[in-house]
Amino acid sequence: MHSFEALSKQFAQYFNVRHFPKEPSSLYDADEYFLSLGGKRVRPVMCLMGNELFDEISKDAWPVAAAIELFHNFTLIHDDIMDKAPLRRNQPTVHAKYGESTALLSGDVMLIVAYDYLNQVSNDYLHKVIRLFNQTAKEVCEGQQMDMDFEKQEVVKMDEYIRMIELKTSVLLAASLSLGAILGGAGQANQEHIYAFGRNLGIAFQIQDDYLDAYGDPAKFGKQPGGDIMSNKKTFLMIKALESANAAQLKELKRLMQENPEDKVARVLSVFDDCGVNKWAAGLKEKYINEAFEHLEEMAVVTSRKEPLRELAHFLVQREH
Amino acid sequence: MHSFEALSKQFAQYFNVRHFPKEPSSLYDADEYFLSLGGKRVRPVMCLMGNELFDEISKDAWPVAAAIELFHNFTLIHDDIMDKAPLRRNQPTVHAKYGESTALLSGDVMLIVAYDYLNQVSNDYLHKVIRLFNQTAKEVCEGQQMDMDFEKQEVVKMDEYIRMIELKTSVLLAASLSLGAILGGAGQANQEHIYAFGRNLGIAFQIQDDYLDAYGDPAKFGKQPGGDIMSNKKTFLMIKALESANAAQLKELKRLMQENPEDKVARVLSVFDDCGVNKWAAGLKEKYINEAFEHLEEMAVVTSRKEPLRELAHFLVQREH
Repeated sequence: MHSFEALSKQFAQYFNVRHFPKEPSSLYDADEYFLSLGGKRVRPVMCLMGNELFDEISKDAWPVAAAIELFHNFTLIHDDIMDKAPLRRNQPTVHAKYGESTALLSGDVMLIVAYDYLNQVSNDYLHKVIRLFNQTAKEVCEGQQMDMDFEKQEVVKMDEYIRMIELKTSVLLAASLSLGAILGGAGQANQEHIYAFGRNLGIAFQIQDDYLDAYGDPAKFGKQPGGDIMSNKKTFLMIKALESANAAQLKELKRLMQENPEDKVARVLSVFDDCGVNKWAAGLKEKYINEAFEHLEEMAVVTSRKEPLRELAHFLVQREH
Repeated sequence: MHSFEALSKQFAQYFNVRHFPKEPSSLYDADEYFLSLGGKRVRPVMCLMGNELFDEISKDAWPVAAAIELFHNFTLIHDDIMDKAPLRRNQPTVHAKYGESTALLSGDVMLIVAYDYLNQVSNDYLHKVIRLFNQTAKEVCEGQQMDMDFEKQEVVKMDEYIRMIELKTSVLLAASLSLGAILGGAGQANQEHIYAFGRNLGIAFQIQDDYLDAYGDPAKFGKQPGGDIMSNKKTFLMIKALESANAAQLKELKRLMQENPEDKVARVLSVFDDCGVNKWAAGLKEKYINEAFEHLEEMAVVTSRKEPLRELAHFLVQREH
């Protein structure tokens, strides 16, 4: 049994190799560049953790973990194009550095290489792994489309937003754990519990994300909070505020969103506070964490084996950066 | 044994169903729209033909044929974004109709659904099918990148251009046949011969494509020829002309490409004729067709079973539209 940190190190050793051919360098350099920007590799390590919950880490879990990480990076490259984002991890995005066409194509090829890794899985599990991987991949695309649709929608309802977060963020965390569990020989009930654990954890994770972007401590958060507020992003906090504000607060919020005054962030936060959005978010996060832990409890696995996952969950939803 | 036409009808029956979920319609309508534009479905039918060369069409060949067609359409959606093409098959391209972000994402999801179809292949062949499919998919991306690189390059050498065509066009035709053959139980030598048949045929096909765009009969070609010449595209004909022109002809070509006079097409064609590019192209096409047919001959299969492929090959390289 290993902690998240220990497995992160092991995964880095496995994953920090060249994944793409040398030529044409005009295509593959873009892929290698993006992977070199790093990241916490949370999803592949969750796959290894889901696997180790049941047994020693299986030979098949490594390439599946790599496929998950490549898939995740593929979505980031393409999302950055759609969002016209100039920076990712404080470095130029692929399209900013190599142009949109190469970014598009380097994303495509990264997805294909993810399937190369999946294809290393043994016959016993290959069909099942591809089935869950593909279902998840489609859902992530659906979530991204919903997210873009919301930008054009005047009103986004809370349940729509939660469904979008589930698709865009949660299902990949859930599937990472579940794919690991499948390869560990988990039965159907355990597969479903670990999936539900990941799905609920993912939503709590996103609530924390939205919270930090509004209330984060700049010193710990690593950047100035308020980005979501500045860009009028519909987050958990903003949707709740719009839903629960009284007439005067609603008018103030809409005016701030339209006029973008210099002190916009502070004034939006002050409305958030008046509406109790801050406390509400903490409560909602708690609800999802509790639900996640209930599913972890329900798993028919020796309790001590669950400890690393419990630690990781606490870290993900309490992190301040 | 069936002709291309007969198998086209059978494939249409299998393929003309809904391939994507209903919701979110903002994403999946774009996919269904693009597939509704139709096409000759050459590649999937080649997969079926490669399969039937050895035996009755196998259950696995149908989903692999569908995966190939979906992959091909995925590349078209993304290529159209990169080329900023407004029309495809005389209808608006996906990005023109639904916006670039949705086009990007609908292409992504189409590739994922292609793997759903591949995942229907039985255990005996799944690894092998994914391996060849993926190798081909990467090569097609590499070909597209080379094609974009060539646009910025002042000089493109003939062997570079042929390599690009091989990657962008030929390998998918070759793999379509070969995947069918694999599922038909073909041995290694037969797999290699049918692959080489498709690869050479694909280059001959592209020479015919470039030829028709310059010399096609508008009544049969369906549109005014000269599009490649107008946009200074580096084609078989143009590269050969630039390589073989004398100083005066070279000066004339470069001036025409820079100044775009009204009678550009006629004057470029006249240089082509003076350089003998027209005849050279016919000869080169012949060379690749002959090589293709030699590989077909070499296949250890009853001669009569090869007849549909021979007919298809003649059609593809002699077509006037």
